[in-house]
Amino acid sequence: MDQSVMIKNDQAFDESLEKIMQCIAEKKYFKARDVLLKHKEPDIAELFEELLSEPDILESTIVIYRLLPKDVSVEVFSYLPSDDQLKIVDGITDAELSYIVEQLDFDDKIDVLEELPANLVDKILEKTPKDERKLINTFLNYPDTCAGSLMTPDYISLQKEMTVAEALAHIKKVGMDAETVYTCYVKDTGRKLIGIVSLSTLVVADENVRIKDIMHTDYVWVNVYDDQEEVAEQFKKYGFLAIPVVDNENRLVGIITMDDILEVIDDENTEDMERMAGIIDWEDSDKDYLDVSVWQHAKNRLPWLLILMVAYVFTGMIVTSFENRLSEVICLVAYMPMLMGTGGNTGSQAATLIIRGLAMGEVEPADAAKVLWKEVRIGVIVGVILSLFNFARIWLIDGNGPLIALTVCCAMLVIVIFAKVLGSMIPLLVKKLKLDPALIANPAISSISDAVALSIYFLMAMIFLGL
Amino acid sequence: MDQSVMIKNDQAFDESLEKIMQCIAEKKYFKARDVLLKHKEPDIAELFEELLSEPDILESTIVIYRLLPKDVSVEVFSYLPSDDQLKIVDGITDAELSYIVEQLDFDDKIDVLEELPANLVDKILEKTPKDERKLINTFLNYPDTCAGSLMTPDYISLQKEMTVAEALAHIKKVGMDAETVYTCYVKDTGRKLIGIVSLSTLVVADENVRIKDIMHTDYVWVNVYDDQEEVAEQFKKYGFLAIPVVDNENRLVGIITMDDILEVIDDENTEDMERMAGIIDWEDSDKDYLDVSVWQHAKNRLPWLLILMVAYVFTGMIVTSFENRLSEVICLVAYMPMLMGTGGNTGSQAATLIIRGLAMGEVEPADAAKVLWKEVRIGVIVGVILSLFNFARIWLIDGNGPLIALTVCCAMLVIVIFAKVLGSMIPLLVKKLKLDPALIANPAISSISDAVALSIYFLMAMIFLGL
Repeated sequence: MDQSVMIKNDQAFDESLEKIMQCIAEKKYFKARDVLLKHKEPDIAELFEELLSEPDILESTIVIYRLLPKDVSVEVFSYLPSDDQLKIVDGITDAELSYIVEQLDFDDKIDVLEELPANLVDKILEKTPKDERKLINTFLNYPDTCAGSLMTPDYISLQKEMTVAEALAHIKKVGMDAETVYTCYVKDTGRKLIGIVSLSTLVVADENVRIKDIMHTDYVWVNVYDDQEEVAEQFKKYGFLAIPVVDNENRLVGIITMDDILEVIDDENTEDMERMAGIIDWEDSDKDYLDVSVWQHAKNRLPWLLILMVAYVFTGMIVTSFENRLSEVICLVAYMPMLMGTGGNTGSQAATLIIRGLAMGEVEPADAAKVLWKEVRIGVIVGVILSLFNFARIWLIDGNGPLIALTVCCAMLVIVIFAKVLGSMIPLLVKKLKLDPALIANPAISSISDAVALSIYFLMAMIFLGL
Repeated sequence: MDQSVMIKNDQAFDESLEKIMQCIAEKKYFKARDVLLKHKEPDIAELFEELLSEPDILESTIVIYRLLPKDVSVEVFSYLPSDDQLKIVDGITDAELSYIVEQLDFDDKIDVLEELPANLVDKILEKTPKDERKLINTFLNYPDTCAGSLMTPDYISLQKEMTVAEALAHIKKVGMDAETVYTCYVKDTGRKLIGIVSLSTLVVADENVRIKDIMHTDYVWVNVYDDQEEVAEQFKKYGFLAIPVVDNENRLVGIITMDDILEVIDDENTEDMERMAGIIDWEDSDKDYLDVSVWQHAKNRLPWLLILMVAYVFTGMIVTSFENRLSEVICLVAYMPMLMGTGGNTGSQAATLIIRGLAMGEVEPADAAKVLWKEVRIGVIVGVILSLFNFARIWLIDGNGPLIALTVCCAMLVIVIFAKVLGSMIPLLVKKLKLDPALIANPAISSISDAVALSIYFLMAMIFLGL
């Protein structure tokens, strides 16, 4: 294997980063550039991410960036996250910026323009041909999480009367990025999509066959305003390399390629995880943790905490109503954290499995009865085992007598079963109401289960201890 | 758009399902088959998933499956989850099964054989040519979550001395699935990979150019034993359609295509979410929720609950040590659930963001200081707002006097800040120790924060109430 192949492991990455830092310290910018150029563009971009995170060496980093060969600098730019792109934009000349934007693939170009300040966008668009300017403006207007924002207008169009040889000659002429060339699109005169044909079909087919005889007419498409999550579902289901995007009049407006979907899947998963932890991303941003401001972080996290605060008023009322009896058998207070905590954890376990199952299409609201029966049985097994452990501990170690132990353990069993049922049924109910089950976050489930856990506990205390 | 294109929305799916159910009730199996054949194969597979989930009509479902055209039946089979595949295997003849397995793509074949009982595998392998049998056995031996288990040996090999015209003629001759034809691999005599060339390059290049002059030699590869998560990282980073897999002697043994990675990304995300909710998947299975047995579910969920049970012994001890003083000001008990709950929730929020940030490469252990400073500030903002709400409530609504209100609110502020720090620092520490941060599940963070929350609360009570 040649040397360049080997530079892909973390060690080589760290070594290069160190070398570059040293070059910067010694102001040897050309040498730093040469170290960078031993890597592939996505790796160079990662090295720049590291360099750009150090404000002290920002100027030197920009100098090195400007020393990169032009084609490399464009590609590296396209791999950078948007906040790092902005740092570079601030440091280069308008002419350099215009060149980069011009050379970017159309979908990357849109992503960059979306992040730039309006006056800079105007300045860049002034120099773009009128047709492209119009197209860019259309693309800039698609909402951030819809199919339109993911697509590129760079695709191969064929006519249905073309022969395979003519089609291949056409492809050879227009050339194009690997990712967008593998599926070709056949349109009628009204720009409506009438069929698709893959490059592999063209390569394997006889030269004189006509496109209309080999094209697929039962292709799958998405609408330009479809949510990106639905688009990802189509890719997962069919395993396509690209999918055509049509407007409301069924005219082909662009294509989405699979490589752009990998990021969507991760973003959607991040959203689900955050929602489940009771974090609401008001700005619907895919910004990195460190790039979100302290205020925005607080704003994203406060709503659920405040809602739960209200829930705890009720929990407090339950405790208060039992206060006098509690002070008679004060040792009962010591087991409150355990019972509430176990209820919350066991409910979150069930909720996580069901919310994830719903997102993956493994479980549906119609399965409610099956899920209920399953969770009740799991609850009994888990509850009995936890109760036995506790019975032994409370009676033998804590020395609190069998009646207290019985109270805590019966409460434990009922709480675990109840929490499993609650944690599994609430997400199914929310889904049935056509809402995102992840929105009914785990904090909500654990606070409801807290209130119920205490009620059950006090009820058991009344039964077994005659309070 | 023609009719077949339109059948992709949920309504059409539900209507077809209903029609098929009715056909089954009336024993009109051929009519049911015709309804199915209006859909694309992945959708037919989804319809079968629904049908196979009803044990009462299993026999009829199998009859309809056997009525499908042979090529459709193979493709539908490849889209089914493994438990549904086994239901079909049980209902069809050995000859039919052999046919299906023979026709499947190599990677699907391996997936099916892995799930079948050993005697059935032997029976099928008996009929396979010796060379393929050997290859199958090698593939069956790769661990479940490594690159080897994802790859296919079906790829296009070229020689470096070939011209483009010869290469295209070769591709035309061997033909192949769309997903595996788009990148061609150039090997030396020792089966070592020396370069790659994409189909698009071949199509666009001059016919007489030699492969060695247009092939890329700085390609990225993975080792056959690399973890599937690392493979997914490579795809995300470079956006490749396929990646070559080499053995320890750097010989090309197969390729992994991007469509197989979509599933890996979802599986890895599911694993993270489950771990964060305190669920350990002992069998490392990607089985659906409903297909996991009650015992297995209990086994996956119990370990963390039992560990936390031990943690609650300490929490209990903290409460017990304060018991006598608590019974003097029993109204303090009413705020315990709120303080513990808020601490747990706010800690989980921070932990989720950091664990996700680590998984996505947005945050690193080296960022600890930045994260700490950020979370402290967020904690102050969130804590002050929550405390102000509570102060008003406790003093004005609960009527518990300003000293109690002050005790609770100061505790709240300290607890929130502490939980944010704990929730953000623990995952970074675990990552630093080269473990999976998701493994230090949110339940662990909330139980530690419970114990600390109570300690802080009681400390405040001693300070402000002189207990």
